[in-house]
Amino acid sequence: MNRINVLDHGYVELMEVMGTDTTPADSARVSYAKGTKTVNDDRALIRYLMRHKHTSPLEMVEFKFRLKMPIFVARQHIRHRTANVNEVSYRYSIVEGEFYLPTALYKQSDQNKQCSSDELAGIDDTQVNMLSWMAEGAESAFETYECLLENGVSREIARTVLPLSIYTTMIWKIDMHNLFHYLKLRLHSHAQYEIQVYAQAMYDLIKPSFPICCEAFEDYSLYAKSFSRKEMNLLHEMLHDHYSMDIVKIWLEEDGSLSKREQDEFIDKLVGVIL
Amino acid sequence: MNRINVLDHGYVELMEVMGTDTTPADSARVSYAKGTKTVNDDRALIRYLMRHKHTSPLEMVEFKFRLKMPIFVARQHIRHRTANVNEVSYRYSIVEGEFYLPTALYKQSDQNKQCSSDELAGIDDTQVNMLSWMAEGAESAFETYECLLENGVSREIARTVLPLSIYTTMIWKIDMHNLFHYLKLRLHSHAQYEIQVYAQAMYDLIKPSFPICCEAFEDYSLYAKSFSRKEMNLLHEMLHDHYSMDIVKIWLEEDGSLSKREQDEFIDKLVGVIL
Amino acid sequence: MNRINVLDHGYVELMEVMGTDTTPADSARVSYAKGTKTVNDDRALIRYLMRHKHTSPLEMVEFKFRLKMPIFVARQHIRHRTANVNEVSYRYSIVEGEFYLPTALYKQSDQNKQCSSDELAGIDDTQVNMLSWMAEGAESAFETYECLLENGVSREIARTVLPLSIYTTMIWKIDMHNLFHYLKLRLHSHAQYEIQVYAQAMYDLIKPSFPICCEAFEDYSLYAKSFSRKEMNLLHEMLHDHYSMDIVKIWLEEDGSLSKREQDEFIDKLVGVIL
Amino acid sequence: MNRINVLDHGYVELMEVMGTDTTPADSARVSYAKGTKTVNDDRALIRYLMRHKHTSPLEMVEFKFRLKMPIFVARQHIRHRTANVNEVSYRYSIVEGEFYLPTALYKQSDQNKQCSSDELAGIDDTQVNMLSWMAEGAESAFETYECLLENGVSREIARTVLPLSIYTTMIWKIDMHNLFHYLKLRLHSHAQYEIQVYAQAMYDLIKPSFPICCEAFEDYSLYAKSFSRKEMNLLHEMLHDHYSMDIVKIWLEEDGSLSKREQDEFIDKLVGVIL
Repeated sequence: MNRINVLDHGYVELMEVMGTDTTPADSARVSYAKGTKTVNDDRALIRYLMRHKHTSPLEMVEFKFRLKMPIFVARQHIRHRTANVNEVSYRYSIVEGEFYLPTALYKQSDQNKQCSSDELAGIDDTQVNMLSWMAEGAESAFETYECLLENGVSREIARTVLPLSIYTTMIWKIDMHNLFHYLKLRLHSHAQYEIQVYAQAMYDLIKPSFPICCEAFEDYSLYAKSFSRKEMNLLHEMLHDHYSMDIVKIWLEEDGSLSKREQDEFIDKLVGVIL
Repeated sequence: MNRINVLDHGYVELMEVMGTDTTPADSARVSYAKGTKTVNDDRALIRYLMRHKHTSPLEMVEFKFRLKMPIFVARQHIRHRTANVNEVSYRYSIVEGEFYLPTALYKQSDQNKQCSSDELAGIDDTQVNMLSWMAEGAESAFETYECLLENGVSREIARTVLPLSIYTTMIWKIDMHNLFHYLKLRLHSHAQYEIQVYAQAMYDLIKPSFPICCEAFEDYSLYAKSFSRKEMNLLHEMLHDHYSMDIVKIWLEEDGSLSKREQDEFIDKLVGVIL
Repeated sequence: MNRINVLDHGYVELMEVMGTDTTPADSARVSYAKGTKTVNDDRALIRYLMRHKHTSPLEMVEFKFRLKMPIFVARQHIRHRTANVNEVSYRYSIVEGEFYLPTALYKQSDQNKQCSSDELAGIDDTQVNMLSWMAEGAESAFETYECLLENGVSREIARTVLPLSIYTTMIWKIDMHNLFHYLKLRLHSHAQYEIQVYAQAMYDLIKPSFPICCEAFEDYSLYAKSFSRKEMNLLHEMLHDHYSMDIVKIWLEEDGSLSKREQDEFIDKLVGVIL
Repeated sequence: MNRINVLDHGYVELMEVMGTDTTPADSARVSYAKGTKTVNDDRALIRYLMRHKHTSPLEMVEFKFRLKMPIFVARQHIRHRTANVNEVSYRYSIVEGEFYLPTALYKQSDQNKQCSSDELAGIDDTQVNMLSWMAEGAESAFETYECLLENGVSREIARTVLPLSIYTTMIWKIDMHNLFHYLKLRLHSHAQYEIQVYAQAMYDLIKPSFPICCEAFEDYSLYAKSFSRKEMNLLHEMLHDHYSMDIVKIWLEEDGSLSKREQDEFIDKLVGVIL
C-alpha cells in the first residue's frame, strides 16, 4: 500500500519513484574505475558514500509524494527549497471544510522555547473546553468563508479568514539526498509533533524498497552523533583518565570550556555509558 | 527612505544592497575581451545582456529586504525558492494581534478563475457586513489564541487557530536576476492585488539606485511581449496583407489555429494599433 | 533505441524517465478545481501552462541521461546548475585516449565575437595541416600523460596535461522545465555547434514520448519571439501606418530609438513578411 | 590586503562582502522573541545556530571573490552549484599563455585511490625530466593554439587544444553557509592539494572580519567529528569497560560490526587518547 493516513484528515502517498536501492552505487561507479560488482559491493559502496558525505549519487533517486497536511505544517515543510511543488491554490479551488484538531493539548516546554512538553494535566475540563473552542473557532471561520463566497466575494480574499489548521494538498518531488536531509531535521524530537508524523510516514513508505540506502542513512546520519572540537578534546581526556560519569560532571563544570547547555548535551550523548 | 508601508499593517524595507547599477556590466566583462569602458558602454552592455537572456551577471547584485506581510501573501511569496529566508517562528514568538482586512471587497472574476474583478456594487450594506464579519472572525480567533496561551498550551499548537490574514515578518535576500523574475510574475495584473503591492514597493525601493538595470528590465522583460510560433505566422501574414483589425478578428476565427482564448490574447497584444 | 552517437566519440543515452506526457497536466490539476479530463483537455492545459509560464508542473517530469562529451563542451554544459551530476573523476580513473577532432575548421565570425562562421576556404592544405597539428598535439599530450603514470606520478596531477578536447562521461538528471530552458539556450544558433548537437540529441530522444509537451515548448518557447517595449511601439506604428519593409528600415534609422544591432534583430524577426 | 596569490599564477581576491560577523545573529533574532542584545549574546547565539544546524541565518552573509585558477581546479570548484558565477569565456577572449606547473611530483597513493602521497624520491632526474615534459607539452599546445588563431580558425575551436592546466578567471559569489560547506570539503586532507590552497586562501581572507562565525564553524563543523550509530555503541562499551587502546583494537576485530577501514577511521578519531 502506498498511502499512510496522518493526523485526523491528512495522508502521505508515495506516487512514483525513479531508481532503486542500487542506483546510488551504480551512479557512483561512473566516477570510479570499472570493476566487478556484487550485491555486497553495492552495500559497501553506498555506506562509503554516506560515511564520507559523497552525496551526489544519492541525488540520482527521485521520489514523488502526494501530501495532505494542515497549512501550519505545510509552511514548515515548504522551507525545504530543493524540491518541486504543486500545491492546491485556494485562489482557484473552493476549500473543503477540513481542519486539524489535536487529540490532546500539551504544555509549553520550559526547556525548549519552541517545543511542547507534557500533556496538560489535572485540568481536564479546561482541556476539553479548549479543544471545543478550537473546533468552534475553525467552524465559525469556515462559515464566514462560505458566506463570503455566497455573496460573490472572490475566492482569493475569502480564503484569508481560514485558520492555519485548514488542510492543503500538494505534490512534492525530491531526490533522496535532499529527502534524507529533510528527514534528519523533521524526524528530530525537537521538530513539531505534527510534522514528525509526516516525516515518519514518508520514511515508512520508502524504507521497504531502499533497505541498503536507509540502513546507511540511519547509521551515518540519522543516529550518528557529532562531537565538537572542544567535546573531542574532553573525550580524549576522559578516555585517557578513565573518568567516571560523576567525576565528568564535576570536571566539566570546573573546566568551563562548554556552556551549561553544551555540558548537558555532551553528557546526553554519553549517557547510560559510564557508571 | 528605505521603507514603504504596504496594506494596513505591512511594509517593505530595503536593508542592504551588494553591488551597484554597473556591477552586472563589470561582471560580464570578465567573460569578454578587455576594453575601454564608459558609462554609455555600461548601458549598452547591460541592455545586450538582458536582450539575450545572459542573466548570470545580474546575479552579482544582491538585495536584502525586511518584509511584513499577511500569511496568505507570504505563502505565495515563499514559492520563489532561489532566495534566502529568515521568518519569525510562531513556535518561539508570541503573535501580535495584527491581521489584514481589505478596504473593499471584489467579485470573483468570471473570466479568470483565480482573480477578483469589479468591486461588489449595489450591495453596500452587505459589503460593510462582510467586512465586519471578517474583522470579528479574526478578533475572535485571536482571543482563542490568547486564551490557549493563558491556559499553558504550547505556542506551536495555539498558533493553529490564527487566520491566514495574520501578519508575519521575514528577512528575504535575493539576487537581481531572481528578483526581476519575481517582479515580472508578481507585478502582473493576474497576480493577487495583495502581493502586487509588495512587488511594487520592492521595485520602487531599488529603482532609484539601479536606473540602467531597471530600464533594461522594463524594456526587455517587464513590458516585452512574446509571440508564439503560430502568432508569428499570423503576424507575418497580417503584415504582408495589410489586414485591418476587423478583418484580423474574422480571419483568426476562420483560421482556427488559435483557440478562442489565444485569439483574444493575440488581439490584446496588438490592440490600439490597427484601425 | 535510447542512444544517439554525437561527434566522433560521444553519445547521449536516455537512461530513465519519471512521468509521462500528461504528468504536467495531472500535476497542475492539483492546483485547479476537479473536473472531467480528456486527452484534449490535457493538451489544452499544458499549452495554457506553457503560454503563461506556469512552469512548476513541468518540473514533475524527470530525465536521466548518460552523456559522453569533450571537456570543453562539458564545461558549458555544467553551468546549468539545476541538475544532478555524477561525472567520471580522473583523480580515480585512468583516461582513455579519446579526444575530439572536428571534421572541418571554421573561421572566426566577424559579426559575433563568440561564434564561428564560414568554413575556412581556399586554404585546403593549411586546413589539413591544422587538423593534423591538432591531432598530433592531442596524441602527444596523451603520451606525456601515460608516461607520467608509468613513472608513478599521481593521476590527479598527470591529468593536468590533457587537452580540453578529451572526452568525459557523466550521468545528468534534470527535470523537464529546466531541460527545456537548457534546450532553448543550447539549440540556439549562437551556441557552439559542438554543444548544439548534444542538445539536439537529447531533444530527439525525449520528443517521441512527450509529443504534447514538446509541441507546446516549440510553440511558446523555442520558436516564440519576444518584442521589447520599444519594438512593440514600433510594431504598433508599423501596423497602423501599413509601412512596407523598405520604409520600415529607413524609418527605424531615423527614429533612432533602437541601436543599429537592435534594428537588424527587429527586421530579422519580421523578415520574409512585408514585401 | 584583499588578494592572496595561489599556485604559480593564480590568486584569490575578496571583492565585496554583504553583512558582518553579527548578521547571522541579527537575522536569527527575527525568528526568536525580542530581547536584550550584547556582544556576548551574539557569540552564544551564533554558536547555538551552528551547533544545531540552523543554517539559514548564515545565508544572510554574502561573499564575492575573483578567482584565477587552473581549469582542472575550476572544474572541481564549479561543482558547488549554490553559487553565482561569471567566468571568462575562451569563445570570446584570447587565452594568455599561463599554465600551472607543480614544483614537485607526488606518487599515486596506495591507500586512497584519488590522492597523491609522498614526493617521488630517488628518481630526481626523472622528476626533473617529467616536469620538463609537462612544461614543453603546455608550451607546444599553446603554440598550436596561436597558430590556429593566426590562420583564422575560430577561438571556440582553437581553445580545444589547450591543456587542463591553463588558467581561467571567474567571479564567484556565495553565501556564508554554502561557503562553509565548500570549505569543509575542500580544506579536507583528501581534497587535491591544488584546490585546498584556494580554499585556504578564501578562509584566510574572510576570517579576520568574521571571528565569531569562523570560530563557531571550526568548533562545530570543520574540526568536529561524527560517530556513526555503531561507533556510538562501541564508544559506550569502551567507556563502560575502561578499555585500553590495545584491547580496543583486538576487540574491534572480534566484534566485526565495523569494516577494517571503519575500524581504522574509528581509532584515528580516538588516537592519542587511550594509552
